[in-house]
Amino acid sequence: MKPITIPYTVLAVESSATPASCALLRVEEHGSTLLCEAAVNTKLTHSQTLLPMITDMLKNAGLAVSDVDALAIAHGPGSFTGVRIGVAAVKGLSFADDLPCVGVSTLEAMALRFDGVPYTGRILTAMDARCNQIYTALFACDNGAVTRLTPDEALPIAEVGERLKNETAPLLVMGDGAELCYRTLHEIVPTLSLAPVSLRLQHAVGVARAAVAAVADGQAVSGDALLPVYLRLPQAERELRLRQNKEVL
Amino acid sequence: MKPITIPYTVLAVESSATPASCALLRVEEHGSTLLCEAAVNTKLTHSQTLLPMITDMLKNAGLAVSDVDALAIAHGPGSFTGVRIGVAAVKGLSFADDLPCVGVSTLEAMALRFDGVPYTGRILTAMDARCNQIYTALFACDNGAVTRLTPDEALPIAEVGERLKNETAPLLVMGDGAELCYRTLHEIVPTLSLAPVSLRLQHAVGVARAAVAAVADGQAVSGDALLPVYLRLPQAERELRLRQNKEVL
Repeated sequence: MKPITIPYTVLAVESSATPASCALLRVEEHGSTLLCEAAVNTKLTHSQTLLPMITDMLKNAGLAVSDVDALAIAHGPGSFTGVRIGVAAVKGLSFADDLPCVGVSTLEAMALRFDGVPYTGRILTAMDARCNQIYTALFACDNGAVTRLTPDEALPIAEVGERLKNETAPLLVMGDGAELCYRTLHEIVPTLSLAPVSLRLQHAVGVARAAVAAVADGQAVSGDALLPVYLRLPQAERELRLRQNKEVL
Repeated sequence: MKPITIPYTVLAVESSATPASCALLRVEEHGSTLLCEAAVNTKLTHSQTLLPMITDMLKNAGLAVSDVDALAIAHGPGSFTGVRIGVAAVKGLSFADDLPCVGVSTLEAMALRFDGVPYTGRILTAMDARCNQIYTALFACDNGAVTRLTPDEALPIAEVGERLKNETAPLLVMGDGAELCYRTLHEIVPTLSLAPVSLRLQHAVGVARAAVAAVADGQAVSGDALLPVYLRLPQAERELRLRQNKEVL
């Protein structure tokens, strides 16, 4: 696996829910530049859109995979299929040149869209995990400095409401589960409001930002070692374990 | 020219400076959805990148120009070449189906990236107009509600500093001239700071948002009637007029 040294270019991919996106970030000693990005939010599956979108993005920026020094993916939590497609695509891209890969939390990457945004308050990330549950983590944003307050968890929405009902700080909810969460909780969590549409959904730009921190922290791995992080067993396995009277994660 | 009625889909284009971007916004009665977007910020010229990027964006979203009901372009101020390429591309796209076109202020579209962002203060938009001048307009943002305070102007940076030196509200500067403006003015305008990187540059998503308001205001025109708005004469014409002892705009 090639080492990652500054300056480097990271190709980031987000496919954890219905939207899919990719971005290329040039990281230099005194800051980083977004070279290009592309996103779709239609009903097409990621298996149709993801690799052509990455290929076209690089072509339109006059670049190729050989210009990329590292790959980053939102490795979960999220849609099992979406996360698998994204991780598999990144593994595939990594193999030819043994490019280093960075898996980052989908929820942390999402919260990092607020990096630098002049907002002070809490950020609740929420992805629809079906069955009235969300994948969620809570972050603080202090005039653009985003820090994590709780780990990634799969929780019943009602339990999230219980935890937050006495919150007094402004609380923005973002992610593909934001509207569901807002509808369910806004009466019992009075400081809750929807994040602005322009920053609400997961995007590869946030994945790239999370990857920069992960690279600095020595978390890059080879394509072989990159794995999805599901937080829960797939529905089919959960039902099987229930029928077998086994514990369900 | 076809009328524009809700629901409609608007294809927006931004090419007023080095970055180029495009976005497709679906506008419905109760809000709008960003269907896809793409952006490059490299040294390639817009004549190379813009139309292939639009074509690829539509293809990757499973859509075609025939799915578009209206076209929007940041018609200026900005780089003369950039604005001309963008306006020409949009005119070209409009002709086959006589699609309605909306030209919006580059500066207003830029400020609308803060639409919904929980920030209260001023937004100074700044595009590098060379010769120590900027194209600029001042906006207010009241917890995400963006309103214009001054018209689009081409001004010496020093004059902008004079106007703003007694400003007490937080003042974010954005646009491709943001860093130039910040470097020049931060000592005499103490409340000035750089807009977050993620929202700093012009982007077609802001053009689409500005277009929604312009459409509602009946400002759509046919492709024939779409024109660039330069604010100033091109450098060559200004020099000619100076040599001829004529007034220079």
